[in-house]
Amino acid sequence: MKLPVSTEWVLHCATTLAQLKPGATASAAQLAHYYDLPAPYLAKQLQALVKAGVLTATTGPRGGFRLGRPAAEITLLQVVEAVDGTSAPYECREIRRQGRGALPPEDCRDTCILAAKMAEAHDAWRRSLAGVSLADILASLPSTAPARTRSRLAGTS
Amino acid sequence: MKLPVSTEWVLHCATTLAQLKPGATASAAQLAHYYDLPAPYLAKQLQALVKAGVLTATTGPRGGFRLGRPAAEITLLQVVEAVDGTSAPYECREIRRQGRGALPPEDCRDTCILAAKMAEAHDAWRRSLAGVSLADILASLPSTAPARTRSRLAGTS
Repeated sequence: MKLPVSTEWVLHCATTLAQLKPGATASAAQLAHYYDLPAPYLAKQLQALVKAGVLTATTGPRGGFRLGRPAAEITLLQVVEAVDGTSAPYECREIRRQGRGALPPEDCRDTCILAAKMAEAHDAWRRSLAGVSLADILASLPSTAPARTRSRLAGTS
Repeated sequence: MKLPVSTEWVLHCATTLAQLKPGATASAAQLAHYYDLPAPYLAKQLQALVKAGVLTATTGPRGGFRLGRPAAEITLLQVVEAVDGTSAPYECREIRRQGRGALPPEDCRDTCILAAKMAEAHDAWRRSLAGVSLADILASLPSTAPARTRSRLAGTS
């Protein structure tokens, strides 16, 4: 059970964009330089965040990415699921219905209890990540972080 | 983020073995017939459960698999981690230390807050599955289930 490596990228990039001044943007190239990541692949991930509404992309000479809504309204779950999808890690293929032990249909009206317990665990994981916003992450950073981030991102430091 | 298909197999097989009479065993072939699964691959998964102490394997003409300890002392987490391992789905590669935005070492003494939040979510998932034992699963089955299971497993019904 593995999340893609790009999960770390998008969590950090969203956190970085959350430190921009209102209305400011950063390009995929700037973010790629900031974290030394492959720009084309990073750009694809950022587009996935745009599709999910986490980011907004603006075009033109000063175009780039910025948060699609306030940092307090973007959760880590939304960022993670934007790139990894929302499907649960456990897939129930209903093996209870097959083979010599196959249960009759009338015994399979309810969700398999094992699938239900695996789904509860996934819900617990989702709730945990849904309880943390980008604003919470920013609040945990040193007060000097946003100014440093903006300056390094612009390549002016 | 996906669990292997064999996760469903081992959860069901462990539940099935929990319904045997004390001291009784079932072979990989019997379990494979019971759920119509590929026996050699299932046998490998059952061996992983033995290695984790969830099951015990006995040899000889009446040999096979049985629970390695009472059903109340075997959690779904132990079954799942026996086949999928214990590593967390999120891997922090410390991209905060690289690129133009690289943080100095003194700012990286603590775990990255994003990695910490992802770890908390994994802990929530693990706690959820650690809170459910095979005995809990058995308690949710119809009272007629164990007798049916034993008879179908033995191929006598």
